[in-house]
Amino acid sequence: MSDPDLILYTDSSPNGFKITIALEEMGLPYSLRHVRIDEGEHQRPEFLALNPHGRIPVLIDRATGITLFESAAILLYLADKSGQLLGHDAPERWACITWLMFHSASMGPLLGQRVHFECFDTVPNPAAIQRYRTLTEATFVTLDQHLANQPWLGGATYSIADIATFAWLHIAQLVGFDFSQQPWLSQWYAQVEQRPAVQRGIRLPAPATGP
Amino acid sequence: MSDPDLILYTDSSPNGFKITIALEEMGLPYSLRHVRIDEGEHQRPEFLALNPHGRIPVLIDRATGITLFESAAILLYLADKSGQLLGHDAPERWACITWLMFHSASMGPLLGQRVHFECFDTVPNPAAIQRYRTLTEATFVTLDQHLANQPWLGGATYSIADIATFAWLHIAQLVGFDFSQQPWLSQWYAQVEQRPAVQRGIRLPAPATGP
Ligand SMILES: N[C@@H](CCC(=O)N[C@@H](CS)C(=O)NCC(=O)O)C(=O)O
Ligand SMILES: N[C@@H](CCC(=O)N[C@@H](CS)C(=O)NCC(=O)O)C(=O)O
Repeated sequence: MSDPDLILYTDSSPNGFKITIALEEMGLPYSLRHVRIDEGEHQRPEFLALNPHGRIPVLIDRATGITLFESAAILLYLADKSGQLLGHDAPERWACITWLMFHSASMGPLLGQRVHFECFDTVPNPAAIQRYRTLTEATFVTLDQHLANQPWLGGATYSIADIATFAWLHIAQLVGFDFSQQPWLSQWYAQVEQRPAVQRGIRLPAPATGP
Repeated sequence: MSDPDLILYTDSSPNGFKITIALEEMGLPYSLRHVRIDEGEHQRPEFLALNPHGRIPVLIDRATGITLFESAAILLYLADKSGQLLGHDAPERWACITWLMFHSASMGPLLGQRVHFECFDTVPNPAAIQRYRTLTEATFVTLDQHLANQPWLGGATYSIADIATFAWLHIAQLVGFDFSQQPWLSQWYAQVEQRPAVQRGIRLPAPATGP
């Protein structure tokens, strides 16, 4: 059997799980390259040749010769390639893209800052901790209100917007960022979590043990 | 004459200028609604009905009945609608999307944090100032290296990736975030800046005077 066309460079981390989950959901064959951030492998010249900014995930598609980085770009590419998980008609498609971007630009980066100040910072910075707690909790409230009216972020069907948002919240929950006061968000989270492809995705390349 | 189908809700700010520039470049008719953030207009119920997270820009397209928020989603929508500014073939299209996402998820949000701590914070927070200076300067270096090899972020042609990145850097420059040590980025910036549509876009709804 020949090697799959898709090669995913990733680590066990929020932005990486977005892509392992999506690939598992879509049933696309791929091979996995574990880039160990803890060991600085994302700063090696071979990896910087793929993403000059030195971040996972990176996807190579040997069928098209295209190399992509940025998890949201990779999700859009895989939805386009597979014809899956991006809404059925134009309104739902653009709702998916809107909520994918909400996650990618307005929520994920702030969760990343909260993880830094709450979990990694060597000198406690209460003002910064408070700032990112407030800002990320505001995103939980916005998602909760939105999910009160519809089952999935893009509307009637599960999409890459749900996958991206879930993958980050999986880590958020693991490190103790609380969204249990948001009933609709919590219910949605539990539904995504029980999907078999999601269970496989969050264990690749290995289950996360911390932030 | 009937009213244009496109209605843009915006203010004079980095994420707003992305859309005024794009609309001016594409030559699409639109009407402008000035949402004055200074006066809290983005928190009014009428506006929260359009974007529950209370941020500009928001675009309504009355031709399709679609309402979008998140600047990157709006740029993708306008590129799709107009058939402009998103690369000519698949490799260039996906390069545009990758660099649009790099800006939207990895650069813009960190510039926003830097503006907060350097320009708005009431109690100086040197550790946070240093963190966001280092992280945003790393994005300038990545862009600079990338632009050493090609004229535009997506490759051979100017695209929505250039527009998004320029719009934020316009504010960065105005508040004194320095990228003059990055020759390719500076040259690219000067080229984008001299485009007539860009000059119109950064004055709508009014020129920016500060962060
Ligand atoms: N906006 C990027 C963020 C990528 C990112 O920050 N990846 C993390 C792992 S989740 C990483 O590679 N970190 C290494 C580092 O920051 O040096 C995306 O969505 O892909
Ligand atoms: N990720 C969003 C960010 C939108 C955003 O933060 N907009 C700012 C103006 S540039 C805003 O509305 N700020 C009001 C506030 O933060 O309360 C996008 O790209 O559209």
